[in-house]
Amino acid sequence: MPTASSNSHSPSAAYFPDEPELPRLVTSFPGPASAKYLKSLGEIFDTKAAYMLCDYQKSIGNYLCDADGNLYLDVYAQIASIALGYNNPALIEIAKSPEMIDAIVNRPALGNFPSIQWEGILREGLLSVAPHGLDKIWTSLAGSDANEAAYKAAFIYHRLRQRGKNAKFSDAEMESTMNNSAPGSPDLAILSFEKAFHGRLFGSLSTTRSNPIHKLDIPAFKWPKAPFPTLKYPLDQNEEYNRKEEDDCLTELEIIIKDWDDRISAVVVEPIQSEGGDNHATPYFFQQLREITKKNNILLIIDEVQTGVAASGTFWAHEQWNLSTPPDMVTFSKKFQAAGFFYGNDELRPQQPFRQFNTWCGDPSKALIARGIVKEIKEKNLVSQVARVGEYLYDALSSLQDKHPDKISNLRGKGRGTFIAWDAPNLAARNKFLLDMKAAGINIGGCGLHSVRLRPSMCDFLRFTYLMMLMTLNSTFI
Amino acid sequence: MPTASSNSHSPSAAYFPDEPELPRLVTSFPGPASAKYLKSLGEIFDTKAAYMLCDYQKSIGNYLCDADGNLYLDVYAQIASIALGYNNPALIEIAKSPEMIDAIVNRPALGNFPSIQWEGILREGLLSVAPHGLDKIWTSLAGSDANEAAYKAAFIYHRLRQRGKNAKFSDAEMESTMNNSAPGSPDLAILSFEKAFHGRLFGSLSTTRSNPIHKLDIPAFKWPKAPFPTLKYPLDQNEEYNRKEEDDCLTELEIIIKDWDDRISAVVVEPIQSEGGDNHATPYFFQQLREITKKNNILLIIDEVQTGVAASGTFWAHEQWNLSTPPDMVTFSKKFQAAGFFYGNDELRPQQPFRQFNTWCGDPSKALIARGIVKEIKEKNLVSQVARVGEYLYDALSSLQDKHPDKISNLRGKGRGTFIAWDAPNLAARNKFLLDMKAAGINIGGCGLHSVRLRPSMCDFLRFTYLMMLMTLNSTFI
Repeated sequence: MPTASSNSHSPSAAYFPDEPELPRLVTSFPGPASAKYLKSLGEIFDTKAAYMLCDYQKSIGNYLCDADGNLYLDVYAQIASIALGYNNPALIEIAKSPEMIDAIVNRPALGNFPSIQWEGILREGLLSVAPHGLDKIWTSLAGSDANEAAYKAAFIYHRLRQRGKNAKFSDAEMESTMNNSAPGSPDLAILSFEKAFHGRLFGSLSTTRSNPIHKLDIPAFKWPKAPFPTLKYPLDQNEEYNRKEEDDCLTELEIIIKDWDDRISAVVVEPIQSEGGDNHATPYFFQQLREITKKNNILLIIDEVQTGVAASGTFWAHEQWNLSTPPDMVTFSKKFQAAGFFYGNDELRPQQPFRQFNTWCGDPSKALIARGIVKEIKEKNLVSQVARVGEYLYDALSSLQDKHPDKISNLRGKGRGTFIAWDAPNLAARNKFLLDMKAAGINIGGCGLHSVRLRPSMCDFLRFTYLMMLMTLNSTFI
Repeated sequence: MPTASSNSHSPSAAYFPDEPELPRLVTSFPGPASAKYLKSLGEIFDTKAAYMLCDYQKSIGNYLCDADGNLYLDVYAQIASIALGYNNPALIEIAKSPEMIDAIVNRPALGNFPSIQWEGILREGLLSVAPHGLDKIWTSLAGSDANEAAYKAAFIYHRLRQRGKNAKFSDAEMESTMNNSAPGSPDLAILSFEKAFHGRLFGSLSTTRSNPIHKLDIPAFKWPKAPFPTLKYPLDQNEEYNRKEEDDCLTELEIIIKDWDDRISAVVVEPIQSEGGDNHATPYFFQQLREITKKNNILLIIDEVQTGVAASGTFWAHEQWNLSTPPDMVTFSKKFQAAGFFYGNDELRPQQPFRQFNTWCGDPSKALIARGIVKEIKEKNLVSQVARVGEYLYDALSSLQDKHPDKISNLRGKGRGTFIAWDAPNLAARNKFLLDMKAAGINIGGCGLHSVRLRPSMCDFLRFTYLMMLMTLNSTFI
């Protein structure tokens, strides 16, 4: 069990000696200042989805400060994004560095005019934690466009394979693409899974299947979706049922692939479906998926936008699968404040320039922060810290689940670091729980239809005891 | 005519007292260090489109330094992006400010957790230069996703109009959208113009028509395109021809709109088609376009990603049209290092939260730089500076065109600030010209099939005399 002394050795204590031990509430939630200024901001910027107005300069470590001076223990971390806590001193140093000032003031068009520092920033940072088997990178600006860059690479590769390496574009291709028609703009597809979330741009949104509100009224490519296993938890007590469920989904997947007759360029999948409800599948499922995609000449894109960067107890969540061959591309963003995709070989680079291209092609200021985060994760052993904290959290929540099976069910994320979630009885109860928690000083998020998810930063320990305490109270009284 | 003394009063002299008067070349182009390190960078990052490796910390004002220490007069400015020259001292101060450090270290999810500073940053910066009639903003990360956010707003608005304000989503809509099918994912379209460029994500790419290499092998929405006028230059000497050409294009546009029978949600158009070759149309064309779109319940999106932020001699290029009613949305990015779209009324905001949404919803660090650029433009009267420099440049180039009609033709951009372009005789001659200019110390860009475009920063004057001189030399000898 954690104690005050165990905390004094944690990265959190090292980073934030002045971090409070408990949330500090001075108003009800939402506070009057938050409400007033959100209304004023709403005159110019859409605030319909805003929970509170925040004072980031007064936030510290795992505590998020709002406009009223309330300090919330934050286990949502800007939708799974803040890697090392608010106002992390190591990142503040990077933000003040001459390199950062240069990156901010002289933002380069990296495709045309990369900087002399760019290679070092990538090699020392993002590439130093590249997944096994993938040694190249292309940078973009967020998870959505990282996925779209990967999709474009898959389509270009698909047509290269069909056309042959030395074949030129035909006149028919050159002309038809200007009319958005085949063969130049081919009717190829990315296959995604039910309940998946891969972003909200037009291509990525066509692979997103998590919630109608994300998609309604927006035209979509008629791309196919495959069923994602709906497993029973805990996984280790439902192996037989889950294996059959996964096999059924894989069978269905193979039927879809056959129906589409070499028109699926890639399958995109999250290691744990996050927005869609923290839905897990076993390593077996992903191993089979890798075999099926390889057999059918389909690329496999792993979307680690939410699972990546240590959250799952390994640096990349897919490292826990022991695949026979690496995925073809891995996308990421949130915890690095930066996005990109890795790829494994030159064939995934278009043969011609200006095909995978845009003005910015990434952002050195984000890559500098990512390099700093990598350094801290290595120096402070944060991957194992996340695994340790996650194990403690899972066990504590498991006890709570045993005590309150009517309030907490389908606890999931064992052995997956702090990537933990459970189900509330229904949507109303879940939403009430999230509000009750905010009112009690805990900023926590939901996902799926009626799930609660933990997405803390990587540098916390003791403070979760307080979360536990509150959950106990809440689960008793709701 | 500019002289050394006139330069001493220019913003460039005020910002960069140590800026050189001439390019400084110490190696051939590309230099050996650039070539060597580009090859090494190319092992991990695609450098097929890279011209040179740059040393931004040694760049100054209008001069871009490469890895070999060559200083190029830069009239391309990171593909029309660097607003105030390299290492602008005003922007360096902003980069060092506590607000910037906060924005870098604690990147907020602005849709859920906006900061107490966010409203002020927007009101003092981006919104203070909002085009007439548009007083709201939504922020994104680049030009492409700004356009896609505008497209999504248009589609949502279109269906709201069809469905009625108080109607709920039907079960059929909720179910079909999860399969990417109508009615939930409707077959609506954005209409764009031939030779247009609006970005490279899947939705924006479907409206891009500038060059097959941007589009080949990537699936596209079957959205329509209308002809864009091919005018004769100079515009004031070809009014009759141009009017007929514009009328013909408008007639064709109306036919397409009728054919699509209320399935076109918006028309997107650049004030001057930039990547597609600096193609101009007259205010008459855009006035008619505004009337036609209004009459047909179609939104008008002006893509000012390249033309915006003073480059055209007014803050927004479309301000020169005297429209009867403002455009519905205006997108921008490059010169602000930030992107967003303005809109004019609450109806363009989705009624429900989480429809126009993503993790970041913009980036305060970019909005801070944008605010600084706005302040400098106002304080140093850079809009009129750009207009003045543009007039001088246009006149000088016009003389050159008279002298070398075989080398320079279709000079365009009179009265459009420094947004100036001309045609080379053919693609090979244009590309040779661009290389010759680099070898002579001028970094200049092309566009369209065989055009050359000027896209300098806003704070230059005297140095263009040197550009003129070189052009003279080149146009004499090529």
